[in-house]
Amino acid sequence: MTEGRARFDAKRLINFSTKALQKLGVPEEDAQITARILVETDLRGVESHGVAHLNMFYARWIRSGAVNANPKPKIFSQAPSIATMDGDRGLGFVVGHHAMMEAMQRAEKTGAGFIAVRNSSHFGAGAYYAMMALERDMIGIAMTNTMAGVIAPGSAKPAVGTNPIAVAVPAGNKPPFVLDMATSVVAAGKLEIARREGTSIPEGWVVDKEGEPVTDPNKRVRGEGGLLPLGGTPKLGGYKGFGLGVLVDILCGVLSGSSAGIIWPNIREKRRTGIVDHFFGALRIDSFLPVENFKKSMDEMIDAFEALPTLPGVKKICVAGGYETEIMKDRKANGIPLDPEVIQDLQELAKELGIKYDL
Amino acid sequence: MTEGRARFDAKRLINFSTKALQKLGVPEEDAQITARILVETDLRGVESHGVAHLNMFYARWIRSGAVNANPKPKIFSQAPSIATMDGDRGLGFVVGHHAMMEAMQRAEKTGAGFIAVRNSSHFGAGAYYAMMALERDMIGIAMTNTMAGVIAPGSAKPAVGTNPIAVAVPAGNKPPFVLDMATSVVAAGKLEIARREGTSIPEGWVVDKEGEPVTDPNKRVRGEGGLLPLGGTPKLGGYKGFGLGVLVDILCGVLSGSSAGIIWPNIREKRRTGIVDHFFGALRIDSFLPVENFKKSMDEMIDAFEALPTLPGVKKICVAGGYETEIMKDRKANGIPLDPEVIQDLQELAKELGIKYDL
Repeated sequence: MTEGRARFDAKRLINFSTKALQKLGVPEEDAQITARILVETDLRGVESHGVAHLNMFYARWIRSGAVNANPKPKIFSQAPSIATMDGDRGLGFVVGHHAMMEAMQRAEKTGAGFIAVRNSSHFGAGAYYAMMALERDMIGIAMTNTMAGVIAPGSAKPAVGTNPIAVAVPAGNKPPFVLDMATSVVAAGKLEIARREGTSIPEGWVVDKEGEPVTDPNKRVRGEGGLLPLGGTPKLGGYKGFGLGVLVDILCGVLSGSSAGIIWPNIREKRRTGIVDHFFGALRIDSFLPVENFKKSMDEMIDAFEALPTLPGVKKICVAGGYETEIMKDRKANGIPLDPEVIQDLQELAKELGIKYDL
Repeated sequence: MTEGRARFDAKRLINFSTKALQKLGVPEEDAQITARILVETDLRGVESHGVAHLNMFYARWIRSGAVNANPKPKIFSQAPSIATMDGDRGLGFVVGHHAMMEAMQRAEKTGAGFIAVRNSSHFGAGAYYAMMALERDMIGIAMTNTMAGVIAPGSAKPAVGTNPIAVAVPAGNKPPFVLDMATSVVAAGKLEIARREGTSIPEGWVVDKEGEPVTDPNKRVRGEGGLLPLGGTPKLGGYKGFGLGVLVDILCGVLSGSSAGIIWPNIREKRRTGIVDHFFGALRIDSFLPVENFKKSMDEMIDAFEALPTLPGVKKICVAGGYETEIMKDRKANGIPLDPEVIQDLQELAKELGIKYDL
């Protein structure tokens, strides 16, 4: 998919994105945090959540006032391991970064730290926040709710968001285990990529308002039909993916107080303006066992998975995060390949904001 | 499936199971804990994990010495919110019950409590332990690894167990949210039921050693082919179910020190003797927000899901745990319907142990 594309240097992309965000009224430190997370996500090959969204989502939301460019997040806490945070409608990247730092500081003291965040916005790829825990030898957890786009089994009306779960676990010599999964069969970004590339989507990703499969990524209409929860049909476990999606909504939305006292459908209405909630967690590994034992076991486990016999046509068994680590090596060395549409979008953003397009 | 079956009183089943376990050398309190969990599971309609296993699994394992009838579990802790436990090869029910109590006691103090347990055995349905948190107004979490029976995407060799995740969340007037899901498309118990009832299984549950679908539940041979991870094929997200299965193995096995210093394939060998690991967690809701606000929002959320429009032929949208709560009402009032094979099995157990079959 990325062959023949122009490649871009990560540092230049960070600088450009930082400048663009500052021009939009985001304070320098916050702009740097946001730009770094977007580009780190592209470096890992998750282009559905990288700079492709800089203009399309974040610049648009800041301009419309849906996102507060200069928020003052507040923390509330009544227990050593727990806090809630009000994100003051800030950029999800900034709010998420601070909340994950807070979770890790609490884990530092008690072994575990959990923060539920209300009143934030789209935070990009959850993997970034979960991975913040890796260098501290912690297990990191990040979740977010999103606008409802996933149907409940037995209905064709969107009921929960793609509500992703990200967990990162350090290993020794092997790449870290990094699971970052929408609780739907696919994330909405996969449809976006199919639309951009003009390809059809497989049966089992999306259904229409009669519950019938949709294979044209352009055919989908919001509010009628939607993405299938992980598992797909009820017989194949779709209620499990739906259950995970609801769980994410509970941990992010209900536990953060986002929906306290408000009728639930109103919450969904609120989400249309881009306001979402998050949940972050950190577990300190050396509270359980010596870190070196843990990492040695992680390496052994990953080695054992990678040594599994493969079916014909399969090169290698991948453990979550391994593939992204390989992509990152290539992109750090050779640059990030961007879709021509994304390049055009960034050029237009530069023009609109009156900053130099120096990529 | 249960029409026409003889029904049995829950209390009598608990008394009978307690006596059987005591006769096998299990101390009275431990026998009571185990019997109660088995019968509670049958009450919730999860008959794949109830008294059907009393003779088939637990009595057999105690007699063979694989499970220690009178264990002395040990707790190790270096942080207020965290502990690890060595289950001394005890019955998973007893070990699990104590570990979950420990997690909740820690959550009482710090807001969060997490316990990784090594050297335990099959603990039945995870929902029970997660639900222990409900009456304390906590969110409960329980996981266990199991013998490898689920293939990795791209391979046809079992790589992880069905590694279930259970989470219980209290509501107000609505039934609690209780998600208890294998991270495979279906739990192994579903195959057991199909075999007992002589029915075929749908494509997408199991593959053979060539990776081709299997529909005869008797055809499956351990070690060649296996259960598919939740999601099914890689295109439909099978790597997500596999990732969740690996995560459960990390939290239960690696974090508990079960595999510390041991080559991973040996761990799988060890599992053949029935030794598994668990992971328990508890989050105190009032560390996040007032419990009454939380429960009100839970009710509103569940009401909104239940009010979703349904597809033709679907009566009602169920939120995880709602269906089981309805079954429990019926079974508490009218008794637990048992499969004739299970009844015979319990009669044989009574004869073998020389206890009265007084059901």
